[in-house]
Amino acid sequence: MGIIGVEGIKARYMEEMTKMMCFSEEECDAIKSLNLFREFKKGSVLLKEGQFSATSYSLVKGCLKSYYMIDGEEQITGFYTETELYTPSCIVTNKPSKQYLSCIEDCLVSISNPEIESVMLERFPRFEKLCRISAEELLAKQKADFDDFKTASPEQRYINLTKNRPDLLQRIPQYQIASYLGLTPQSVSRIRRRLLTA
Amino acid sequence: MGIIGVEGIKARYMEEMTKMMCFSEEECDAIKSLNLFREFKKGSVLLKEGQFSATSYSLVKGCLKSYYMIDGEEQITGFYTETELYTPSCIVTNKPSKQYLSCIEDCLVSISNPEIESVMLERFPRFEKLCRISAEELLAKQKADFDDFKTASPEQRYINLTKNRPDLLQRIPQYQIASYLGLTPQSVSRIRRRLLTA
Repeated sequence: MGIIGVEGIKARYMEEMTKMMCFSEEECDAIKSLNLFREFKKGSVLLKEGQFSATSYSLVKGCLKSYYMIDGEEQITGFYTETELYTPSCIVTNKPSKQYLSCIEDCLVSISNPEIESVMLERFPRFEKLCRISAEELLAKQKADFDDFKTASPEQRYINLTKNRPDLLQRIPQYQIASYLGLTPQSVSRIRRRLLTA
Repeated sequence: MGIIGVEGIKARYMEEMTKMMCFSEEECDAIKSLNLFREFKKGSVLLKEGQFSATSYSLVKGCLKSYYMIDGEEQITGFYTETELYTPSCIVTNKPSKQYLSCIEDCLVSISNPEIESVMLERFPRFEKLCRISAEELLAKQKADFDDFKTASPEQRYINLTKNRPDLLQRIPQYQIASYLGLTPQSVSRIRRRLLTA
């Protein structure tokens, strides 16, 4: 995890969260006492189709991908990087997962689950508001992404990604980017060539 | 609005909400006193591209569609029917809307906006939890819809709709269904014929 080291990254993450959420010292201590940080090696599979999981992952460092196996092929539906949150749909549907979740890079995450949340929400009721606002913001963001995906041409989808998530193009292999955009690797190559010569 | 009449529908809606949310008499009276019901005729446009709106619509009766105008053509991204909620992204992004919202049928809705919500949340703090859970459920549902859209073939997208939202096929013209599925009307006709003769 580079020159700062894992403990440095954890400390900086807690500092940033404390600033953003205006955590009190008591709240901060309560969160630290839960020991929520976990490390996973690149390639680790955190969730498989058919499994039931109630664990959410907040990315501190690294990158996760969510995907489906369809006719033996990976179809990627999401990348999750620093500060993003992956919540398994099992929690809401009460059904086994239809998708997989794995680490594209070495990952440091902060985990949570409904039990941890309920303990924290009971002890610190003001977290209800933080969680509500965060869920509503995520909802709006996800809806905008969905609308963009539906209304954009393949070329426009690629251009949107270069504008909105240039970091993904740097750290993720092109064939996985293609799968995420619902395109073939050949289409992405063609689009890139067209854009470079335009 | 049929034989029960608008007042009957409003009363039944309040009864159902009261049951679902376990509203106390005080909470119920507070909501009623806000006079949130509005009626709109079929064809009414509630939001246009470039406008800023903070008004959310809970569908009591009728159907709304959200859409983008792209190269002079409507691209439909959502249908909202009884018990569903449309929230404009403006509230979160603080930018003008990129999409339109209009009534496909005569509509009876219950409106809200951040000011109304903040008054109610201050008066009845337990609503924070209701709103958080509802936002988290919507988030999971929307994510599943997005994943389905990304991973399904055109035919599978149509089959998913017949399974998950058979009501939409009954009340919405086929060319609008096609737009919503990201397909041409001709493709939808072909898919329907194939499924009928299969």
